[in-house]
Amino acid sequence: MSAEIIDGKATAKLVRDDVADGVAELVAAGGTAPGLATVLIGDDPASEVYIRNKRRACTAAGMTDLHQHLPGDADQETAAALIDRLAADPAVSGILLQLPVPVHLDPDALLARIPADKDVDGLTTANAGLLAQGRPGLRPCTPSGVMVLFDRHGVELEGAEAVVVGRSVLVGKPMAQLLLERNATVTLCHSRTRDLAEVCRRAEVLVVAAGIPGLIGPDHVRPGGTVIDVGIHREAGGLCGDVDSAVSEVAGRLTPVPGGVGPMTIAMLLANTLTAARRLQGMGER
Amino acid sequence: MSAEIIDGKATAKLVRDDVADGVAELVAAGGTAPGLATVLIGDDPASEVYIRNKRRACTAAGMTDLHQHLPGDADQETAAALIDRLAADPAVSGILLQLPVPVHLDPDALLARIPADKDVDGLTTANAGLLAQGRPGLRPCTPSGVMVLFDRHGVELEGAEAVVVGRSVLVGKPMAQLLLERNATVTLCHSRTRDLAEVCRRAEVLVVAAGIPGLIGPDHVRPGGTVIDVGIHREAGGLCGDVDSAVSEVAGRLTPVPGGVGPMTIAMLLANTLTAARRLQGMGER
Repeated sequence: MSAEIIDGKATAKLVRDDVADGVAELVAAGGTAPGLATVLIGDDPASEVYIRNKRRACTAAGMTDLHQHLPGDADQETAAALIDRLAADPAVSGILLQLPVPVHLDPDALLARIPADKDVDGLTTANAGLLAQGRPGLRPCTPSGVMVLFDRHGVELEGAEAVVVGRSVLVGKPMAQLLLERNATVTLCHSRTRDLAEVCRRAEVLVVAAGIPGLIGPDHVRPGGTVIDVGIHREAGGLCGDVDSAVSEVAGRLTPVPGGVGPMTIAMLLANTLTAARRLQGMGER
Repeated sequence: MSAEIIDGKATAKLVRDDVADGVAELVAAGGTAPGLATVLIGDDPASEVYIRNKRRACTAAGMTDLHQHLPGDADQETAAALIDRLAADPAVSGILLQLPVPVHLDPDALLARIPADKDVDGLTTANAGLLAQGRPGLRPCTPSGVMVLFDRHGVELEGAEAVVVGRSVLVGKPMAQLLLERNATVTLCHSRTRDLAEVCRRAEVLVVAAGIPGLIGPDHVRPGGTVIDVGIHREAGGLCGDVDSAVSEVAGRLTPVPGGVGPMTIAMLLANTLTAARRLQGMGER
């Protein structure tokens, strides 16, 4: 039997449509369209592609593109002053600092200047603390995109055994917190986990964000379980994830790479920007 | 066979002696003795006992007792102004707001005014974010006390299967983060966990902070595993924990109640206050 494929591209489209509707409602209710300030420092070609995609998605949803670009030799003070200006500007709902920044800059010091309520990437220490304490805040885009995949595909989380592979600040750790918030029993695995296959086989819900191509094979998967592959790698045969394709013969549901988690990340950036705009404009949650 | 008893009272004494030595060294090096500002609002008798114990331990370690007391009818502004004054006072190394505060006050708003570097209870959202992101900060006292118990009793954490029962912001969640930091494979269980006994039996290291007397019995414990009981309850037969006494026939090591985790909490408050004083005085870590 072959696993049901969780179509991230289609789900992301639904989220983006919902966000566009939300933007229209906000404006109709007398608010102003959310403004997203992407910040690019330097001319890294990969970063330029990412930024272009984010800006396109932003305008397609009816938001205002407030993109900022600094030359690659901008110093720390200049970059900090730009973020401070965006932080103070009421037209800016969300600030996204594209990483990596040039090596002569301190990215943590720059991220720390983004106010928690405009941190639409959900990466600041302030938002990590809010998530850890279960308080309202902006959540990191990739793990919240995974949560939407679960919800839109009827994956039961309450009381489920969930296993997360990888403990990055960007994905693994916040993923574990979000699953816990939904009452899953959560195990966090990593490179020092002794018998990864044994631990993963317990998982009714398995999220893999290890950054190692093909790490998870059929013997890591519980028959019928849901497997989410956050990895993305460019190999000789094309793009692949952290999960071996043979897993589709064991899993009940599986995200493809590409077209699984990837498209959800930008969609959740838009959702976060709308949430931030509503809060900043005192228009509450939908 | 009966489990080895982990003596928290003796270990706490070692920590307190170490802190006293550290205070003496700090002063000898030209620094000033750490000052701990406990803040009590109102006259709750249990809180008065806790505060008295903390103040005694503080002076016994050579620190300066900067206790503050407000009447039970103090308003939010008065309490906030007191915390702001302590935050600005260079003689104050640590601020501890005794909870609960009278019901007319907002404890979260008061805690949020404590600067992260004086938050010796490790309870602020800022310190929770630092812990979640693996950055230096002040950690909550009870889970860091449990970590010291592991280290002083030779409990191997690297690659170990660790299970935490209970997901409070005070104990369970930071406990999981601290175990993860030490490369354990960590599972967090709670009231919605489907088969608690099955999950707990996997644990080479089991930390129970559920707040339910006798929740954990012998069938929850892996033979030879280390069991830490954070619970404390006053029952007809005296004090007891979350772990049934019969567990001592299965576990390899076990903390008693009382005399296990309890004494570690105040010891770690002192350790945090010394750490805060060193950082604030630019005397670095030991």
